[in-house]
Amino acid sequence: MKTYHRVTEQDLAVFRGLLPGRVFAGEEISPDYDHDEMTEYGHYMPEAVLQALSADEVSAVLQYCNEHLIPVTPRGAGTGLCGGCVPVQGGIVLSTEKMKRVLEVDVRNMTATLEPGVLLMEFPKALEGTGLFYPPDPGEKTATMGGNAMTNAGGMRAVRYGVTRDYILGMQVVLADGSVIELGGKTVKTSSGYSLIDLMIGSEGTLGFLTRLTVKLVPEPKVNLSLLIPFDDLDACIGAVPRILGCGCDPTAVEFMEREVIACAETYLGKQFPDVSANAYLLVRLDGPSAEALQPAISQLTDLALEIGAKDVLLADTDERKESIWNARGAFLEAIKNSTTAMDECDVVVPRDQIPVFVRRMMEIAAEARVRIRSFGHAGDGNLHIYVCRDELPQAAWRETVTAVMDRLYAEARALRGEVSGEHGIGHAKKAYLRESVGERQIALMRGIKEVFDPNGILNPGKVVG
Amino acid sequence: MKTYHRVTEQDLAVFRGLLPGRVFAGEEISPDYDHDEMTEYGHYMPEAVLQALSADEVSAVLQYCNEHLIPVTPRGAGTGLCGGCVPVQGGIVLSTEKMKRVLEVDVRNMTATLEPGVLLMEFPKALEGTGLFYPPDPGEKTATMGGNAMTNAGGMRAVRYGVTRDYILGMQVVLADGSVIELGGKTVKTSSGYSLIDLMIGSEGTLGFLTRLTVKLVPEPKVNLSLLIPFDDLDACIGAVPRILGCGCDPTAVEFMEREVIACAETYLGKQFPDVSANAYLLVRLDGPSAEALQPAISQLTDLALEIGAKDVLLADTDERKESIWNARGAFLEAIKNSTTAMDECDVVVPRDQIPVFVRRMMEIAAEARVRIRSFGHAGDGNLHIYVCRDELPQAAWRETVTAVMDRLYAEARALRGEVSGEHGIGHAKKAYLRESVGERQIALMRGIKEVFDPNGILNPGKVVG
Repeated sequence: MKTYHRVTEQDLAVFRGLLPGRVFAGEEISPDYDHDEMTEYGHYMPEAVLQALSADEVSAVLQYCNEHLIPVTPRGAGTGLCGGCVPVQGGIVLSTEKMKRVLEVDVRNMTATLEPGVLLMEFPKALEGTGLFYPPDPGEKTATMGGNAMTNAGGMRAVRYGVTRDYILGMQVVLADGSVIELGGKTVKTSSGYSLIDLMIGSEGTLGFLTRLTVKLVPEPKVNLSLLIPFDDLDACIGAVPRILGCGCDPTAVEFMEREVIACAETYLGKQFPDVSANAYLLVRLDGPSAEALQPAISQLTDLALEIGAKDVLLADTDERKESIWNARGAFLEAIKNSTTAMDECDVVVPRDQIPVFVRRMMEIAAEARVRIRSFGHAGDGNLHIYVCRDELPQAAWRETVTAVMDRLYAEARALRGEVSGEHGIGHAKKAYLRESVGERQIALMRGIKEVFDPNGILNPGKVVG
Repeated sequence: MKTYHRVTEQDLAVFRGLLPGRVFAGEEISPDYDHDEMTEYGHYMPEAVLQALSADEVSAVLQYCNEHLIPVTPRGAGTGLCGGCVPVQGGIVLSTEKMKRVLEVDVRNMTATLEPGVLLMEFPKALEGTGLFYPPDPGEKTATMGGNAMTNAGGMRAVRYGVTRDYILGMQVVLADGSVIELGGKTVKTSSGYSLIDLMIGSEGTLGFLTRLTVKLVPEPKVNLSLLIPFDDLDACIGAVPRILGCGCDPTAVEFMEREVIACAETYLGKQFPDVSANAYLLVRLDGPSAEALQPAISQLTDLALEIGAKDVLLADTDERKESIWNARGAFLEAIKNSTTAMDECDVVVPRDQIPVFVRRMMEIAAEARVRIRSFGHAGDGNLHIYVCRDELPQAAWRETVTAVMDRLYAEARALRGEVSGEHGIGHAKKAYLRESVGERQIALMRGIKEVFDPNGILNPGKVVG
């Protein structure tokens, strides 16, 4: 454990000189900064919050903190689920919330260059009228683009389009010592030395501070529609996924959802889901240039679904119908959260054909531990979001139960050759599971890399392998 | 510079014990092992050649070499173009040429697991009848899959499908100290710590020795066809690319070619190219589920091409017509090589809209230096292959000319925010240009990473940043 320096009045004076009007200490700090979306992992108040506006400011702050051994925790919108932006070692929170400009949309190169604090929900506005779109589509629309890059966020459309990593072409990063580097740019392929940009993506702010990113855009598909496919049970439902993925219809998204999670969302939203006939559903989205062009894929999928045990195939091709389904899907996390006193989550990813096996084991584990588990997720890419609900359990029993259940879930994922996190990251909450999953040799390599980028350990200490 | 140990009779005896019948020294070594496909970069004879069969063997050899400070240069089929597999510091060449098994094709997960020595041209045989295919399509079909992974090879189909990096899900790697690690697996997304697998991809054997890889497969498109689009001049030809990429027709490949390079290929192959009407051509390939499904894209592309100055649009939808075009395209490198006494190559990548600018500058540079330059390449992803031809120049003048021309070409690429290599890598030949391109700070980070993985510097010394 490094010995860090506490933030003094003298340090604050320096920070105020560097970022006038954007330094907050003591009582001035909003309690929002002491946690992310998973309060289950504790509250950690920063000693100061700084809101940067530019790479130059970030550089000056990091240089100072590096010399004075002050921990720097980068923070975007604070929507993470593993405590990644929470200052577990104290020090300052350096926020990108005021770095919100889309700097350029380059239609000819099909790229956009933006500051890290741009929100995922705001970015599409900058693309209006260009005919281009940014495919990654994580559920949390109030997250920042920088946060998405630093966790390699995935999202609904990953089956067809890939994850955030696949769309980041360039990054400007401030290193711990204050030096500013440019990784990549607008080029779309490269074999030019070690891929530092790929190392930076998903590193959760532990290797450098992202100050600008250039993303790849693609021509916007003109039409999309969804198929809601009800099944008698979850096994049949998830078992259908490999056939659907292999049939060549190139789905954009393949999500699974169970009746009880849908019911949660119905309660939360106060709106009825358009179908009540089944226990489990697959939701398949198709993108294309026109409704006619999608017709062969719709026919193929319908025939295939009915052949492999679906009860029906419901086509959602009107905005109203699509919204009623996808709004329910989008509300699952909040709905489950709302249905319980507390919860813990697990975001494992397993090989796609192991999802039914994993889900069955998950149900057995829940039954044995007498705890309510709710899950949904990206059937098309093997990534499950699993929520263990506290409900009425007393605190001590809850801690004991949730720890035991999580240990078993991660062990199951490991046994199936899965990984700790599909898209939420490690933060400080999943460090032990990462270690068990990849083993000491890989942890040592990661720590060696951390040491190369940040020898004084000031960048987001206590996270990932810190 | 590290001080390495020369291979002794005693070392050879140890190697022979570890890899019986697969150790070659002195006269037994074929001269093939002293170079790759670019003999321009010199000949370096290894002290011994070892052919491994398994990760265990590789582990034992590396452990020994690490302890005894013997350089280990990994080698696949030796088809590289930057000297990456050439033992510039002596020591042993450790070859994957006998690790040629496709270990598994997993149709449900759409993955294949294979040894690194499988040739790109052999791999499709293992997929026959599965309905799946492996999209990366580098021109050199006798390269190994391991070599493709270690250089992040690109190829013709990268516009639609991406490069080798996008298809590698899992790797088994032996580290310099002999430890064996498993990176990734069959999972298709992850946010689980630093992406060591992305660091390994494109690292040219300097960070670890690849002994097994798992790649992603996709449903094979049932139909493909090509459009050959003649233009009066190269400017109009390349200028059309952004419009084609932006129109939403999702091309698989967009290549450009000039009459004089086509003429080279005609002479080399002894076959006529199907069109002689123009100075410059775009070659666009489309993939789809059926000929009918591609019809809208064909109409759209035809209208667009004629609108922006194409002389004609020739549809190649028969095997014969497609082969005559793509065989010519595939023969360009060999044809140019065959047309000159010696040549040097440059594989820069620039933002796509800068290709016309770069090509114009290239022509000016060639004219000023009075040297013949031939180029072709991946217009769709900004990656150019440029060949400076020696022809009748005497050796001293050639060295001087080619160095000056290369310096200028790389400087131009840098000025346009391009990168040193789109897909061929750095090896030992492009090290100085990499350094100029990314700067000392990034070179220092890469060297730090190298030190973490290979503290004794035994793995492929003298390459990339070594």
